Amino acid sequence: MSTIVNRRDLDFLMYETHNLDELLERERYSDYDRESVAAILDLSQSMAQDIFQPFAGHLDQNEPKYVDGKVEIIPEVKEALTAYKDAGLFASGYDYEMGGMQLPWVVHQSLSAIFVTANTSVTSYIFLTQGATNMLNACGSDDLKAKYMPKMVAGEWYGTMCLSEPQAGSSLSDIRTKAEKQDDGSYNITGTKMWISAGDHEMTDNIVHMVLAKIPGSPAGVKGISLFLVPKHRVNDDGSIGDSNNIALAGLNHKMGNKGTTNCLLNFGESGDSIGYLVGDENKGLSNMFHMMNEARVAVGMGSTVVGLGGYLYSLDYARNRPQGRHLTNKDPESPMVMISEHADVKRMLMTQKAFVEGAHSLILYAACLLDERASSESAEERARASLLLELLTPICKSWPSEFCLEANKLAIQILGGYGYTREYPVERYYRDNRLNHIHEGTHAIHGLDILGRKVNMADGAALKALAAEVTQTITAASAHTELASHCQDLGAAMQQIQLTLESVSKASDPSLALANATIFLDAMGHVVIAWMWLKQAVAAVQGQAKGNTADTAFYSGKLAACKFFYRYELPKAISKFDLVGSLDDTCLSMSAEEFIGH
Amino acid sequence: MSTIVNRRDLDFLMYETHNLDELLERERYSDYDRESVAAILDLSQSMAQDIFQPFAGHLDQNEPKYVDGKVEIIPEVKEALTAYKDAGLFASGYDYEMGGMQLPWVVHQSLSAIFVTANTSVTSYIFLTQGATNMLNACGSDDLKAKYMPKMVAGEWYGTMCLSEPQAGSSLSDIRTKAEKQDDGSYNITGTKMWISAGDHEMTDNIVHMVLAKIPGSPAGVKGISLFLVPKHRVNDDGSIGDSNNIALAGLNHKMGNKGTTNCLLNFGESGDSIGYLVGDENKGLSNMFHMMNEARVAVGMGSTVVGLGGYLYSLDYARNRPQGRHLTNKDPESPMVMISEHADVKRMLMTQKAFVEGAHSLILYAACLLDERASSESAEERARASLLLELLTPICKSWPSEFCLEANKLAIQILGGYGYTREYPVERYYRDNRLNHIHEGTHAIHGLDILGRKVNMADGAALKALAAEVTQTITAASAHTELASHCQDLGAAMQQIQLTLESVSKASDPSLALANATIFLDAMGHVVIAWMWLKQAVAAVQGQAKGNTADTAFYSGKLAACKFFYRYELPKAISKFDLVGSLDDTCLSMSAEEFIGH
Repeated sequence: MSTIVNRRDLDFLMYETHNLDELLERERYSDYDRESVAAILDLSQSMAQDIFQPFAGHLDQNEPKYVDGKVEIIPEVKEALTAYKDAGLFASGYDYEMGGMQLPWVVHQSLSAIFVTANTSVTSYIFLTQGATNMLNACGSDDLKAKYMPKMVAGEWYGTMCLSEPQAGSSLSDIRTKAEKQDDGSYNITGTKMWISAGDHEMTDNIVHMVLAKIPGSPAGVKGISLFLVPKHRVNDDGSIGDSNNIALAGLNHKMGNKGTTNCLLNFGESGDSIGYLVGDENKGLSNMFHMMNEARVAVGMGSTVVGLGGYLYSLDYARNRPQGRHLTNKDPESPMVMISEHADVKRMLMTQKAFVEGAHSLILYAACLLDERASSESAEERARASLLLELLTPICKSWPSEFCLEANKLAIQILGGYGYTREYPVERYYRDNRLNHIHEGTHAIHGLDILGRKVNMADGAALKALAAEVTQTITAASAHTELASHCQDLGAAMQQIQLTLESVSKASDPSLALANATIFLDAMGHVVIAWMWLKQAVAAVQGQAKGNTADTAFYSGKLAACKFFYRYELPKAISKFDLVGSLDDTCLSMSAEEFIGH
Repeated sequence: MSTIVNRRDLDFLMYETHNLDELLERERYSDYDRESVAAILDLSQSMAQDIFQPFAGHLDQNEPKYVDGKVEIIPEVKEALTAYKDAGLFASGYDYEMGGMQLPWVVHQSLSAIFVTANTSVTSYIFLTQGATNMLNACGSDDLKAKYMPKMVAGEWYGTMCLSEPQAGSSLSDIRTKAEKQDDGSYNITGTKMWISAGDHEMTDNIVHMVLAKIPGSPAGVKGISLFLVPKHRVNDDGSIGDSNNIALAGLNHKMGNKGTTNCLLNFGESGDSIGYLVGDENKGLSNMFHMMNEARVAVGMGSTVVGLGGYLYSLDYARNRPQGRHLTNKDPESPMVMISEHADVKRMLMTQKAFVEGAHSLILYAACLLDERASSESAEERARASLLLELLTPICKSWPSEFCLEANKLAIQILGGYGYTREYPVERYYRDNRLNHIHEGTHAIHGLDILGRKVNMADGAALKALAAEVTQTITAASAHTELASHCQDLGAAMQQIQLTLESVSKASDPSLALANATIFLDAMGHVVIAWMWLKQAVAAVQGQAKGNTADTAFYSGKLAACKFFYRYELPKAISKFDLVGSLDDTCLSMSAEEFIGH
């Protein structure tokens, strides 16, 4: 079995749970059908298995090195990325007008995800380039686009995002990098950027940094931040590579996981001018940067999910082939051992992984479908509805998988026992790689504040109403099937509890108290959304069963069991969390720094 | 502040929460008092800080290597262990008659723990030696003891435990290592042992392996396992080192964490005879090996706990010194940033760590006190009661910290953000080190089966009754304080729910169904026990407050807040878990291996 993708499940999610067929009917995607989508995924799977997966462990153990101001990286990385470029896959996320494939986002995301599972840290080079390119396309001038975009779309030059600085991580308001306007309209960029993934390497002729900086005299805080394009090498008017743009690699960060992605400290304008070009309007940098934020955050959620999937598939395969012990009721030591997939607790750990990973996967693909809906629907109302749902669900898409698919990775290690704790097996690497996802693209806490402090009340609660309408639709569909009746009831009750919790929170005397337990709300609401996703899958499974294809018997009954598992083992956990959030408990909020240890 | 121990809290736990003063009154420990205990802990802390802690990160990044059949390890390890030996600390866990210090176990464990936090993987060499020595002392012949024990007690020779084999991890019943009796009464050992921590190195003149093997013709399964002492180098009659005993180092395992502890694949009797000596009776190997099992398992729990503590202290110190962002209600970007310890979610993450780590710490010290009680009480009844409580609580001592103090380590990383994800800071190492503790000394699942399948019903439920009596005593003491009233009620209800759950489980049609959710029961019962530990601490804090020492104001109010936190944020989680276990849910148990992915 493939340990990077379960194509049967991916098809189930795309076509049976979510309605990719309907999207493929639309004008925007009219060049694609089930067959061509399958061909693209086939190609991706075989490239990922043949070229990306084999050196993932080797790369992890031979991370990029800082040598004489440059990055040394094992050659397999460039070879894999070149193969990706040569297959034209860099263009999978762009529209035709940019020179892209104009795939549905759900397909683009799914093909990308296959590579993430195969070799997570290599794929950052791709996604950062795609993110920077899309941002340039959305906000850049025609001149800038003409000069940089074709190379980036083709995957010949890579891109990065330079937001953080050593003293300003979550608090972008406090960045210090300066951009001083020159006579020719360009800017001199000076300052230090931290945590720059893919920030430097020698694999491409150029690296195009999208940099946040402040123009002297601009307002304090986030209202005075502008966005600049700053290339590693200057580009001549004929498009050829010119002089160095004096961006010094000051050092590499050595991470617990994601080791194959260089993570850099970059000094701009230290040893000479670093020339930057304004992207979008002055002082609109943050909103321009956030232009692609939903996509980026959903992509982080997808990454988390499929790293969870990698652990699930690997540990499942292991459990079905590792003999150890006997059934509890068998006391005969001379009888043969059974496979560990026969042991109740191994089943529980596999089921937990399945429920978390496939639940999250369904959500991410749903979010991708919303992006497609927004891009392709002819109805303004539908586009607005998709936007609202996306805004509301983005914090959950980003955060829930980073918490629960990491938990899945923990269980994958446990199934392999001591072997799982060694670097000879990939599951500990997945666990290390996935730990990053709580931290970047907005920390867990920031998404908690976002959802409870902003999103649930957005547009007078219209986003939450739109979600409730969607959930009700699923409950209505599920109600037709008696075996799903108790789930319908539980999901309805959980949705109601969200409302009650929000009413209690709205009575808080001040915002600090209202938001004191926002992270817990984020996790709990995530559980309700994933429960909804499981009910959607259960409806699809029942409908699938009705078709009577015996090859699918185990697949569909497994889906129904996982749904039941989520409702019985997981959803109740959300209930006590909502109670807590609604109680406006201030036990943590009132702690002074001294009380933690007594001085 | 020290980032490896909070001495104020250790004193609080030893003297105010648990009754070390009373133990020190006893004959067995009459050489010790508060002052001498403090002196030993002072010495340990300064050695740990000065000698062990400084190279912990360096060791992690320069793990032992296999070179020409031998282990190469950085010299700091031997230097630190030599300092430990020279300070006489190897002897802290032994009685006077063995040449030891006859410290209360709770003190021995506490001093050991300080070194664990400082440099986890170095301490394995010490603890494995102590475990092997105690086992030899308990079961070995006088001749064997005379020949090996003095060197081991002094820390000149090290020891190991050789249980697992490549095909037999959790299922010791299936080991294949053979022990064939020779004319002189010794045995020829042949076979392969896997996962042998501290299994080989060049740091000592000899390594004394305690090996499980089967004598040909003995019964199948665990009833045919015997225990042998097998030295790396043979020992001449005069005690000098003789020939090699032909134990070949076949390879090192490369682990995610605990990298400084060599972890070996050893081949016995491959290139020549590996001579072993029977320890205890033939076919009694497993019970002899289990002789020190409670101590070893409590020690694993202690290790987990204080690795959690290391992350807590480090992230607390960081949070109090890292400026980032402003209070939610402050919209002025020109106002100075606040320390992140001011942010609600950072407080929640600190509080969660505090509640988990200090709750677990209290439990581990309580268990150590039970060991001391068993060793020192003049009343046979008291000794029996201590034994029963220890048997019941050991699975929780071993497992709860490995789950929840790992979670604490996860939060420590989160508080440091991107920095926490890099190897420049110790918190990611703690997270990797701590992940081991679910796996060794019995997996999480095995302890679940142990507690639900055996311990709660042990001696007709006498252990559980003894626990209930202890809990009732704490509730009675707490009832005197109105601020603790709701906690008393919640704890009483939770204890009752354990009973109700067990009644439901006893009605299961077969053991597989009864134990299907045993791991979940283990976690939930652990939460109740930790809630009890927090109530004990709260009572002690209220009593401490009454003394009116203003230097302790923040310390005690922090304790009461952490207790409240545990009852409001954590204990409710146990409730839904008990409901689930009591419902005899078979969703996971009924899964077939095919249903997980559909084929």
